[in-house]
Amino acid sequence: MATASANPLVKTLLERYRKMTLDEMLRVIGERQPRRHLYDLVPSYPMRGGKGLRPGLCIGTCRAFGGDAASPLGSAVAIELFHNAFLVHDDVEDGSEFRRGLPTMHVEHGVAIAVNVGDAMNVLSIGPLMDNRDVLGPELAWKIIVEIEHMVRQSVEGQALELGWVRDNDCELTTDDYLRMTLKKTCWYTCIHPCRIGGIIGSRGEVNPDVFNRFGYYMGAAFQIQDDVLNLVGDVEKYGKEIGGDIREGKRTLMLIHLLRECRPAEKKRMRAFLATPREDRIDSDVAWIYELMAKYGSIEYARKTARHLAGAALHEFFIAYGSLPESDDKSFIHDIVFYMIEREL
Amino acid sequence: MATASANPLVKTLLERYRKMTLDEMLRVIGERQPRRHLYDLVPSYPMRGGKGLRPGLCIGTCRAFGGDAASPLGSAVAIELFHNAFLVHDDVEDGSEFRRGLPTMHVEHGVAIAVNVGDAMNVLSIGPLMDNRDVLGPELAWKIIVEIEHMVRQSVEGQALELGWVRDNDCELTTDDYLRMTLKKTCWYTCIHPCRIGGIIGSRGEVNPDVFNRFGYYMGAAFQIQDDVLNLVGDVEKYGKEIGGDIREGKRTLMLIHLLRECRPAEKKRMRAFLATPREDRIDSDVAWIYELMAKYGSIEYARKTARHLAGAALHEFFIAYGSLPESDDKSFIHDIVFYMIEREL
Repeated sequence: MATASANPLVKTLLERYRKMTLDEMLRVIGERQPRRHLYDLVPSYPMRGGKGLRPGLCIGTCRAFGGDAASPLGSAVAIELFHNAFLVHDDVEDGSEFRRGLPTMHVEHGVAIAVNVGDAMNVLSIGPLMDNRDVLGPELAWKIIVEIEHMVRQSVEGQALELGWVRDNDCELTTDDYLRMTLKKTCWYTCIHPCRIGGIIGSRGEVNPDVFNRFGYYMGAAFQIQDDVLNLVGDVEKYGKEIGGDIREGKRTLMLIHLLRECRPAEKKRMRAFLATPREDRIDSDVAWIYELMAKYGSIEYARKTARHLAGAALHEFFIAYGSLPESDDKSFIHDIVFYMIEREL
Repeated sequence: MATASANPLVKTLLERYRKMTLDEMLRVIGERQPRRHLYDLVPSYPMRGGKGLRPGLCIGTCRAFGGDAASPLGSAVAIELFHNAFLVHDDVEDGSEFRRGLPTMHVEHGVAIAVNVGDAMNVLSIGPLMDNRDVLGPELAWKIIVEIEHMVRQSVEGQALELGWVRDNDCELTTDDYLRMTLKKTCWYTCIHPCRIGGIIGSRGEVNPDVFNRFGYYMGAAFQIQDDVLNLVGDVEKYGKEIGGDIREGKRTLMLIHLLRECRPAEKKRMRAFLATPREDRIDSDVAWIYELMAKYGSIEYARKTARHLAGAALHEFFIAYGSLPESDDKSFIHDIVFYMIEREL
């Protein structure tokens, strides 16, 4: 098999469904006013590219289950709008400077306007969910709203866990803590619900959506770990964010959690002091020192290995959730995305 | 007639419906996890008191139209959660330090957690709207979702206008600009939609909710102007926010807009320079100078007069929207709230 990043099917369908969803999002934004400081900024993050993972999983799953690409489009737009709202607020919360190679929303337009644009994206996502009533009928439309409510709630709960760890300077976390947080913060909205919603629509409500839960959890956790690894070792031009930014932020990545567990007491003490320092006072040489410690203690290799194991488990779950479906490009696409999650370089 | 602040009916019913809504909100929050940094903070603003205007208008209108107090309760909780989410984010956006006499959420818990708590309040508001399906039936439940979507969208659009004026240092605004912004930012969610939703539920979908639009607009604008006047001249202990904070923020209140229009060119030039200064560099003596100018040019009196005219127009609209209903405490309560809007001192 070709590696995922070179896999033309993954590349083609991710791009096709991303583009369809973006076009529909622009249609939803339409001619709304005011443009300045609001609706002109809503497409800013979505237009910067991105992988299109969520629309890909949603539309691909719908098609694999016998549906068409149009019927989940409104739901895919809602997920993408929520995702980008989450990114805009996340960048404010983390004080991040770059997103997809360009300045973050709050760096460009100020915190006030960024927070409000994120709020606007959240409310805009309700429109397509209401339109689902005509597209899918009232019963399915309602089911999708139930999915979205759960999705958003899990994300803010996961975000609270992660922000809380930084604020409390928690240095005693385990891999299990990390996975539990990632399930909530990332997996539900990035993988599980896009698949569930695609499956519900594609099967016209016939499939039990719980069949996607483990698949999406393993895949989403692999995705998040790979994301954090790329933040550490990636090429800044390809990745589009500050490399090493997570260390400076004190983000509790799997690498940091591993390192805090494996390093010597004196090293842990110094790390704890670094993490207790106000963020703007953390210095480059300390960031570099922690990076070197991560290499020394095999933390990055541990994270990569964990991601590979999770991807293996996801593959197993793929056959449970999708295995009995007739062969199709979309079925292969979903299968191959599992590899893409851990092989991608951006 | 007794003045509104001493009006026992207004006081009693505002407090009763506020309390009912708060109790139901606490039930909705329930035992959700994580408590720390998230659900423990969700009731923080609602528990600080507040006037309970929105639940009052919603439940009072429902009862005036023949409904009971329980059936609109979920919707009132959704409105209150949205309202408090808006306050938390608004305080971040304006850099405000006090809310209802206590430090704002971001001052106490940091910007990151405050933004996320606001997001959590927004998603929590969806639950009661979904429960409406059992309480009100699918048709009415759907109608309420349509109302809420419009309500939230108008608020973020109004917020974008106001934030944009500050960011662009717009010094050429008119009373009409102010009223248009206030309709969007305040009136829809504070008055119009609470009444519309109460009317829809109370009449079981029979009333045309557009009948509340002018009533809620006039009343909401009077309310907002009174709020801004209290920020200028109120008693800090009663009001619970920094007095004069709006001037320091550069908020485009009706008083500031009036002053910029009426003052002499040299004064306008100095004000424009003050408003162009980064907020943290604005000095107390300049704030005091602008306050004195407002007194000199009658800007505060102009705002008070405008609020009174708007309240008069609201009273006229009250009789169109509620006049044909049988007499009841709730009908009188809604009537008397109009006076409360401009006579209240906090």
